Amino acid sequence: MHISPPQEEWLNRRLRMQRKLAEGGFDACLISQNVGLYYFTGSMQTGYLFMPAVGEPVYYVRRSIIRAKSESKVRTEELGSFRNFGEQLSSDYSILFDSSDRAPIIGADLDVMPAQLYLRLTESIPLAQWKDASALLREVRSVKSAYEIERISRSAEVAAEALEAGLASLKEGMTELELISVIEKSMRSQGHIGLMRMRGYNQEIMTGVISAGDAAAEPTYFDGPAGGRGLSPAAPQSVSTRPIGRNEPILIDIGCCVDGYTIDQTRTAVIGELTSELQAAYDCAESIVRSIEMYLRPGATPEQLYAHALEMAKVAGLSDHFMGFGRDQVKFLGHGIGLEIDEWPVLARGFNEPLEEGMTLAIEPKFTFPGLGVVGLENTYLITETGCKALTLSPESIYVIK
Amino acid sequence: MHISPPQEEWLNRRLRMQRKLAEGGFDACLISQNVGLYYFTGSMQTGYLFMPAVGEPVYYVRRSIIRAKSESKVRTEELGSFRNFGEQLSSDYSILFDSSDRAPIIGADLDVMPAQLYLRLTESIPLAQWKDASALLREVRSVKSAYEIERISRSAEVAAEALEAGLASLKEGMTELELISVIEKSMRSQGHIGLMRMRGYNQEIMTGVISAGDAAAEPTYFDGPAGGRGLSPAAPQSVSTRPIGRNEPILIDIGCCVDGYTIDQTRTAVIGELTSELQAAYDCAESIVRSIEMYLRPGATPEQLYAHALEMAKVAGLSDHFMGFGRDQVKFLGHGIGLEIDEWPVLARGFNEPLEEGMTLAIEPKFTFPGLGVVGLENTYLITETGCKALTLSPESIYVIK
Repeated sequence: MHISPPQEEWLNRRLRMQRKLAEGGFDACLISQNVGLYYFTGSMQTGYLFMPAVGEPVYYVRRSIIRAKSESKVRTEELGSFRNFGEQLSSDYSILFDSSDRAPIIGADLDVMPAQLYLRLTESIPLAQWKDASALLREVRSVKSAYEIERISRSAEVAAEALEAGLASLKEGMTELELISVIEKSMRSQGHIGLMRMRGYNQEIMTGVISAGDAAAEPTYFDGPAGGRGLSPAAPQSVSTRPIGRNEPILIDIGCCVDGYTIDQTRTAVIGELTSELQAAYDCAESIVRSIEMYLRPGATPEQLYAHALEMAKVAGLSDHFMGFGRDQVKFLGHGIGLEIDEWPVLARGFNEPLEEGMTLAIEPKFTFPGLGVVGLENTYLITETGCKALTLSPESIYVIK
Repeated sequence: MHISPPQEEWLNRRLRMQRKLAEGGFDACLISQNVGLYYFTGSMQTGYLFMPAVGEPVYYVRRSIIRAKSESKVRTEELGSFRNFGEQLSSDYSILFDSSDRAPIIGADLDVMPAQLYLRLTESIPLAQWKDASALLREVRSVKSAYEIERISRSAEVAAEALEAGLASLKEGMTELELISVIEKSMRSQGHIGLMRMRGYNQEIMTGVISAGDAAAEPTYFDGPAGGRGLSPAAPQSVSTRPIGRNEPILIDIGCCVDGYTIDQTRTAVIGELTSELQAAYDCAESIVRSIEMYLRPGATPEQLYAHALEMAKVAGLSDHFMGFGRDQVKFLGHGIGLEIDEWPVLARGFNEPLEEGMTLAIEPKFTFPGLGVVGLENTYLITETGCKALTLSPESIYVIK
């Protein structure tokens, strides 16, 4: 099920990061998070990757060193005691640490590294100035290789098949929980790893949200346009045990993760038919998708695309319902996706670096109607040389069950 | 599916934490992690709980304030801009912040809070000395209420039923992935929330591990005695697509999480029969469980219990195989369990505070034989007034399929 990237890809990933480090004035960076380790080494064992801005990185591994050595594509060494990690680094990278004029500037993934670990690192490696390098890491990862795009596409196949299995089982009175358990069973049997990775602190995702009628429209902490009611205050998003009724929108926002790479897609279904108000909102979501597809190409900026979608929602008189309702609206139209589901760029204000070929983005216009439900759709796209290409495979329409 | 704890429980949780804060010399603590917020407020929305050592805590919520207000059992306020959070706190807790002799000592959950957030907090609330309070939080949560024990027991029922469903489907040639998908479907339909929460940085858990023969004995990063081969380097633990063969041990270490509370249990199965070497190791694991049960009561210390198990493994000549093999052994016999799967106390060296009534512990003696597999068992126990009681419900034996 796992195919390794071609050998040159590892060097390419590293060189792209090293260029960013040099441009940003960093002497090196230390990567601590499992997903970051996997991206640069091909292995996800417990340890740290130290990457100088120039020269060879080393993956220092505590456990399992055996597995790390068998998987890793970069130089891999056993991590001594954490207390002596500073000494180990000073000795392996003496050029960096022995320079007498100033302490080296070392970046780290401080957006995910726990403060306790950060404080221990600053003690263990006192001869360093620590700086947040998470933006650089996210930028490098935002542009995908052909290998990565293939992996995402494989997840798209599994998700599409699972959606079909779910729809085949859908009937009135079935609960959201029952429906998701059918879909998850299908994805899991086809290689879904059993979890989805999300970078944001305290953000969690099961496989996604299935939520119908008023349950879908409930406000949540989840950093998305529609989180769903959830099973309890201890799982306050995604499915509930509410039975699915007739003539209400069923939001099926489900992804999966095969071999580390995630896909995200949303379809709207209904048993019976939607009211004209909800149908009109769905049509608006579809128009936004069609229109965004026209602009989705290298050079466009995420914030322009977001502004364009906001404008279309406004013209349709649906501003208050767009991407959540009222005070619980989220301020984006979509997000990068890959090893994590909440990658960069975000289609939101402040993201004004132009899109590049190889970026993968989930675009998810949705409209929320309190008491009634949520309608919308979501595709994952690849930015190509001249435009975009949908990676999601499920036919795009409202799925009507009679 | 969700039953709320009795009203007095919320006050009790808070008072126990406040006593620890006072004893530890803290003036207050700030809780940022979703699980910690849920434990003290009954809600898991995005925000911070500020708890003074004396007086009323406030849950400052960014999103969703509507849901938080409907769920929370403590005073709940809207969080203004993060930049002004320091001012909001100084004004709401002027007694703490206006004292002229010294800056208040504020604890926080620094073992999970990202460094980036920690650094922003220290800027936003400069009039404070920040200190790690994660040990206090873990200690308070280690003793469960009657309500919490009921929740864990409900998860135990769901896990036991799922194990039966899995065993009913088990046959030679089935892959580990296929078997877990049957078990997960059963748990999910019965209310498993679709994820298990684990506190350790970079630690992940799907629902657990099903792993047979040599795949089970592979070393992993996972902080447990047997992690399994996994599906790929991007999911390097739990199930693989290896077909399950005859006469090899099948380790089924599966838990679930219903309404926030987790259960953990392990059973060993075999299609055919085990070799006498593996059977003897299983018998040793069973003897360790029986012996530990005798000592598992208020007053015993976790490190004594661990030492006792180590000694039993040694007497049986199985030291090298106990809790992993060789350099990849883990140094514990079990762990606390509740809202997270890796709670305190750990049955390991250094944990010398006596056990208390109400603690819940998973005890998991396992023996690893490289190339052959892993055998062992795991039960979750409640410490009672005079001893212990198993919360796991699955019959305890090697499950033999002919």
